[in-house]
Amino acid sequence: MMIPGLCLALFLAAPPPDTLVSPEVLPDRRVTFRVRAPKASQVTFFGDWLPTGAQEKMNKDAAGVWSATLGPLEPGIYLYTFTVDGLTIADPVNPRIKLRSRTSASMVEVPGDAPALWQARDVPHGAVEINWQKSKVIGGQTRWIWVYTPPGYEKQRARRYPVLYLFHGSNDIAGGWVLAGCANFILDNLLAENKAVPMIVVMPYGHAVPFGSPREAQAGNTALFEEYLLKDVMPLVESKYRVAPGRHKRAIAGLSMGGGQSLSIGFNHLDLFSAVGAFSAAAPADFETRFAPALKDAKATNARLSLLWIGCGRQDSLFSRSEKLSELLNARQIRHTFRATPGAHTYTVWRQYLGEFVPLLFR
Amino acid sequence: MMIPGLCLALFLAAPPPDTLVSPEVLPDRRVTFRVRAPKASQVTFFGDWLPTGAQEKMNKDAAGVWSATLGPLEPGIYLYTFTVDGLTIADPVNPRIKLRSRTSASMVEVPGDAPALWQARDVPHGAVEINWQKSKVIGGQTRWIWVYTPPGYEKQRARRYPVLYLFHGSNDIAGGWVLAGCANFILDNLLAENKAVPMIVVMPYGHAVPFGSPREAQAGNTALFEEYLLKDVMPLVESKYRVAPGRHKRAIAGLSMGGGQSLSIGFNHLDLFSAVGAFSAAAPADFETRFAPALKDAKATNARLSLLWIGCGRQDSLFSRSEKLSELLNARQIRHTFRATPGAHTYTVWRQYLGEFVPLLFR
Repeated sequence: MMIPGLCLALFLAAPPPDTLVSPEVLPDRRVTFRVRAPKASQVTFFGDWLPTGAQEKMNKDAAGVWSATLGPLEPGIYLYTFTVDGLTIADPVNPRIKLRSRTSASMVEVPGDAPALWQARDVPHGAVEINWQKSKVIGGQTRWIWVYTPPGYEKQRARRYPVLYLFHGSNDIAGGWVLAGCANFILDNLLAENKAVPMIVVMPYGHAVPFGSPREAQAGNTALFEEYLLKDVMPLVESKYRVAPGRHKRAIAGLSMGGGQSLSIGFNHLDLFSAVGAFSAAAPADFETRFAPALKDAKATNARLSLLWIGCGRQDSLFSRSEKLSELLNARQIRHTFRATPGAHTYTVWRQYLGEFVPLLFR
Repeated sequence: MMIPGLCLALFLAAPPPDTLVSPEVLPDRRVTFRVRAPKASQVTFFGDWLPTGAQEKMNKDAAGVWSATLGPLEPGIYLYTFTVDGLTIADPVNPRIKLRSRTSASMVEVPGDAPALWQARDVPHGAVEINWQKSKVIGGQTRWIWVYTPPGYEKQRARRYPVLYLFHGSNDIAGGWVLAGCANFILDNLLAENKAVPMIVVMPYGHAVPFGSPREAQAGNTALFEEYLLKDVMPLVESKYRVAPGRHKRAIAGLSMGGGQSLSIGFNHLDLFSAVGAFSAAAPADFETRFAPALKDAKATNARLSLLWIGCGRQDSLFSRSEKLSELLNARQIRHTFRATPGAHTYTVWRQYLGEFVPLLFR
């Protein structure tokens, strides 16, 4: 009744897949990017290791495929886009899409000789649980919260864990620190090397005000996000997960917009958090006036902050903010770490920072 | 030192976001799709409610924005793409991307008057945990496995749960049943209405052979996936989660390619599974010969299969496969359900099927 040999009819029924390969990582760590756009008159390329706004030329072959071979690149994961006659798009045939709040990009992973800290190694893996919660604070919206639990969490039923609240940047999603930041593998690998304390990492969605809202509305984002964090996210985490009690077991960190949120919420709530991390932060411009009391009483602030860690890439347009914040903290004798590193406003920098920051927590 | 009022410098530094709105769902459930491509000479639209291969015309305005207003559509979530001068892309400004194994598309959600079964309602929510596991079977690759646990799972420590293994289709990802299929919300809502038994749902990645491999290689996918399921996935699930023991507490189901996998693996392992679901299945063409013994002994097979559920949309190119499978099962007096419904090869159909299938399980 059924004809043997037709078991691939599914594939026959669908249009034949485009066999174009993009990206293609070459053995010397150069990468070839390709897009089939025979009718386009100009196609250019942007990768996040290039200066902001740079567009690399792509060349068209007789089959209408535009390509560019770039690099060699340092081992890492890079974001890139094509711009086809003015229209910026993700790579249509690369499944590894960087999900964002609005526009999307593609990712390419360039491996090194040994697995990097952000790569899956042959070690015990933690898990990431997606929780859905109807927010009491943000208009009754159901939002997701991504939560990393370390290896063994489900077995060691008597153990309670410290918690790192970890925030993404503008135009990212709650899972950005996992899907692009590889936070779970970074934690797994640090734990396997006994370089970190087992901890829970909580990753909520940082746009309390919708991304893309007018600037006046955006200005209220940090305050609304703080309320959301305190009234929705933290109660869920504290009731569902086996978290260790007290501020000494609670840290707050983030990148870019999330770094600004960490500084604001952390300094607003030294009663709740004992460690603050700000990676390439959109540091609050009014930090000095808003947190004047904490800056004035350095002794008390230093006693409460077991770790204040600030890092930014020197090629980042936000670099001067972190630098000035560090200068202010120095002037006021607030103990902190300031890491000025090579790099721009990219996850390449943030994966590195997370790998440096996490081992310092909860010691 | 820092200048108040500059706290939005992050947004000033980035290029101004394109304020184009796409998709825009209108009150009458028509939808306007837009893409800014001033230099393109032809832009067309495909949505998965249209016949396969159909391309709707889009029109360009003076600003170079192409648009089409389509519908009204039944409430649902639809996949769509633009084709810009022959290049098929996801919607560049819509964050809701359908992640796939290769090509991507965008999703648009058209709400109805009341929240649908697949929408987040104000009910207790289960969670979805992403596990990473180095496969012993598939070349040492580290693969993710998405696992739904029902509301209350972490509190009811003595309770053990039946398990549904749920598979996606070709060119999808492990999380497809969550991100596009809304399986978690469907389960949440059925449970809240007391229409289903609380269960764990396990969603592994179904391409054991890389998607896009030559057809000869693809032909080996189901066998390798079966081995992966039995030797990697099930041991992880049985050791990590509180699953109820025995075949009566284990079901297997999937859509399209995953439906074919469910039929093959299910009939290969009636010792392991007591219920099988095949949604718009790429049913094995050699089902009659491969499972001749099970087909011959209807009494024994009926005694083992508490549920065999087959469904397919009448507008699906795979419809005749399901229909013929049902005819074969009828001829051999194998008890089963066959649902022939309106619809094509889309998640609109599969969300509906999951909502019908799950209440029948583990009764």
